[in-house]
Amino acid sequence: MSDQLSLLKQRLGELADLGHALALASWDQHTMMPPRGAEARAESLATLTRISHDMFVDDETGRLLADAAAELEGADPDSDDARLIALVRRRWEKERRVPTELASESARAASLGQEAWVRARAESDFGSFAPYLEHNFELARRYVDCHLGRSEFERPYDVLLDDFEPGMRAAEVTRLFAELRDELVGLIAELSDQGAVDDAPVHARFPVDGQRLLVREVVSMMGFDESGWRIDDTVHPFATRIGVGDVRITTRWDQDFFPMGLYGAMHECGHGLYEAGLPSSLRRLPTGAAESLGLHESQSRLWENMVGRSRAFCSVLAPRIAALAGGELASLDAEALYRAVNLVRPGFIRVEADEATYALHVILRFELEQELIDGSLSVADLPEAWNARFRDYLGLEVTDDADGVLQDVHWSAGLIGYFPTYALGNLIAGQLWERAGAELGDLERDIADGRLGPLREWLGERVHRHGAKFRTSELLERELGATITVRPFVEYLRGKLGDVYELDLSRAS
Amino acid sequence: MSDQLSLLKQRLGELADLGHALALASWDQHTMMPPRGAEARAESLATLTRISHDMFVDDETGRLLADAAAELEGADPDSDDARLIALVRRRWEKERRVPTELASESARAASLGQEAWVRARAESDFGSFAPYLEHNFELARRYVDCHLGRSEFERPYDVLLDDFEPGMRAAEVTRLFAELRDELVGLIAELSDQGAVDDAPVHARFPVDGQRLLVREVVSMMGFDESGWRIDDTVHPFATRIGVGDVRITTRWDQDFFPMGLYGAMHECGHGLYEAGLPSSLRRLPTGAAESLGLHESQSRLWENMVGRSRAFCSVLAPRIAALAGGELASLDAEALYRAVNLVRPGFIRVEADEATYALHVILRFELEQELIDGSLSVADLPEAWNARFRDYLGLEVTDDADGVLQDVHWSAGLIGYFPTYALGNLIAGQLWERAGAELGDLERDIADGRLGPLREWLGERVHRHGAKFRTSELLERELGATITVRPFVEYLRGKLGDVYELDLSRAS
Repeated sequence: MSDQLSLLKQRLGELADLGHALALASWDQHTMMPPRGAEARAESLATLTRISHDMFVDDETGRLLADAAAELEGADPDSDDARLIALVRRRWEKERRVPTELASESARAASLGQEAWVRARAESDFGSFAPYLEHNFELARRYVDCHLGRSEFERPYDVLLDDFEPGMRAAEVTRLFAELRDELVGLIAELSDQGAVDDAPVHARFPVDGQRLLVREVVSMMGFDESGWRIDDTVHPFATRIGVGDVRITTRWDQDFFPMGLYGAMHECGHGLYEAGLPSSLRRLPTGAAESLGLHESQSRLWENMVGRSRAFCSVLAPRIAALAGGELASLDAEALYRAVNLVRPGFIRVEADEATYALHVILRFELEQELIDGSLSVADLPEAWNARFRDYLGLEVTDDADGVLQDVHWSAGLIGYFPTYALGNLIAGQLWERAGAELGDLERDIADGRLGPLREWLGERVHRHGAKFRTSELLERELGATITVRPFVEYLRGKLGDVYELDLSRAS
Repeated sequence: MSDQLSLLKQRLGELADLGHALALASWDQHTMMPPRGAEARAESLATLTRISHDMFVDDETGRLLADAAAELEGADPDSDDARLIALVRRRWEKERRVPTELASESARAASLGQEAWVRARAESDFGSFAPYLEHNFELARRYVDCHLGRSEFERPYDVLLDDFEPGMRAAEVTRLFAELRDELVGLIAELSDQGAVDDAPVHARFPVDGQRLLVREVVSMMGFDESGWRIDDTVHPFATRIGVGDVRITTRWDQDFFPMGLYGAMHECGHGLYEAGLPSSLRRLPTGAAESLGLHESQSRLWENMVGRSRAFCSVLAPRIAALAGGELASLDAEALYRAVNLVRPGFIRVEADEATYALHVILRFELEQELIDGSLSVADLPEAWNARFRDYLGLEVTDDADGVLQDVHWSAGLIGYFPTYALGNLIAGQLWERAGAELGDLERDIADGRLGPLREWLGERVHRHGAKFRTSELLERELGATITVRPFVEYLRGKLGDVYELDLSRAS
């Protein structure tokens, strides 16, 4: 390896080591930390973020980048090293415009904001949370201002979105979401007159100890490996990789609604499989990490919904649920489970939403956060705006902020521009699922046999092994020959819901 | 606050924030981390250590120290700020002599060494561990060499010991340990002809779930507070404070030997109370941390043994054990428990040793590590030397390295010069206990009533509130009017064991 490239990689490795400590501190805050530890944790996160930011934006990083690029002159532009330089240069150009003090203050505010959110949600008290939220949006606007005049960002919101979905722009999301919203609203209307699917099985009592055993079995089938993974309880489930060989997923439990624990764990395990499948040859390098949150979410949604809620996998789940839960579920059959877990019914909570209404929750947030950023909506008016839009999109009257505007952790943690990636993930999952079905001839039979390795390996080959070498749109072009599109997801959904509701929902297109 | 002092404190605060991340990474490694995460963890610890070391030893720290000292000219030498300057200057003078590369490599070696030790101990395979141990001692010798010629260190070992017990020297430890060893050997001989105390109760079956409930009750009495503490399982119990409001203790369990979980937890909770009692006015400053490990161990041993194994506290424990364990223990009475937990019998494992033999385990390690450092003993010859000395001091034949030289984590983690602090802690505990008994008239009755607050508050006043403002010897002089002495501990032990064995062990002195 060339000298300057080697020095650059050493510096990036040290940044990865700081990222390791930050990831651990964040995981711990959400799973283990006693409440009174929050203030000291916020200070530590702020300092580590500041040190990391300073080290990255240092002129020395720019010099190493330039020198390493010169050394690589003439190399294959798709090589690991050339891609690394391109990625790091983009990030360096973005991050060096951000003052250290702003980066550090954002980390501190995120940590304190989350604690405030936990308290506010518990008491459904938006007022106590509003100052923290106001501060987070103010910091986001200051962040946007650091990039004023850069032509690659068309709108202020693009600056934020780009951190979570590199290369994606609000205009493109708006276009995709308009198409998706029309499709979903139409589909939901077609279902709404139908006799309801019976979802009694998912509300039958299933003691949490038994659910834990079921989840252990399911994530093991998926590829959870005791020697390199953990699963823990938390309030707002997430997955993270602290470092190579250290993937951590979380879930939460409700004895009267087992899908929360089961599908929450499958979702996070899908994220974990992406993290575990990243190329170890690129360890401690930014290219050895996940590329975008949309791509990440495509993995979690694919495992949670396309596998987990399939007829084939329900035939695996039903006898195990029957055996572990007993009681009302003792004679659960696969078809009843399949219908119950695919009921479409608008509800208040995004993470509990069915596949047809889910994206509407996301679109609502995408719209509101753009308005909060451009100043056309104030934090004080947010609950009212939320409730009004909720009525429009989902036809429900929010009466409790804990089930409304306070339900998500994201804004409390300064994660603004993050939400759209959830629905983009659904779309990408639809595209991957369509292709996997075509290429893995026995996919359905494999799933019905609980044999999930072939699908995991296929996803590893198509997505995981690339790390962050390619932007999402480029990766999809290379692997699927298309950029993000709405059609495959909608066709998948119409196919499954037609089956569940015994309707012909397919369309001539 | 003066400008330069304020800048110095800001720098020290950032170092505390890095320390926070390091403490968390270490806690996690011993409680939560999946095994395959070890390599990435070692890299992260090494990088954070390097960054912390560089920031501390920087010339800027020296300049701030000098300027802040000038600003404080004429201030009370016992003031918080004057003491802070003195402490930081001592540490800076020591640490700046250590090359960054050595500090970083030591952190990395410690992390990898611990993983190697876990594997080696599981297989009782000293050979696989020897290269790691050799490397750790080599690094320790290089560390010692950084301080060659500094008159304050009389022997090479002093450099190491001073990191754990600031100001203490090997010559003083040798003198104290010679006196202590003679006392203990004499005492053990006096007991050895006596009919054995019946320790059947401690080996009766006590399901771990019940033990967990008992431990929760006991640590709550001591001052464990759910909002700012955690307790977890681990292989080698320890206590740590991640930050203010975040104290973490650990224990381990054996259903056929409940003192492991119970007294392990009381021991670590004693450490935790010290950490929790440190002055919050000195938060994020080195003076707001514990002063020495000997002082720390005095707290843990006092709670574990002087409280936990007292007749008074056995009267609290016995009915709860009887109720929670049932079975053979259902009719356990306080006197039987008191005798069983105070049996003196030489054994292989330090952390399971009774109060009379415990220090002999420590003295053996103190001698061996000095020989390993000065080169008179090689790592290859260590198991044999261990076994020979064990025969001499404890009269037992070690047949399995897992129960011999491989039993402790310390050397694997590069903690060389640490062991003597355990026995020094016993001595200090003896001094504090004697004084507490004199000053808290109702101590025994309070303990018998499970009322442990007065003792905790007394220790807070005498020890915890000082943080690291004073060196241990100075703190003892101020609070007890004496430096470390052997007599109170031996008198305490003779008093209790005379009671347990129904002998007159008191001596005219």
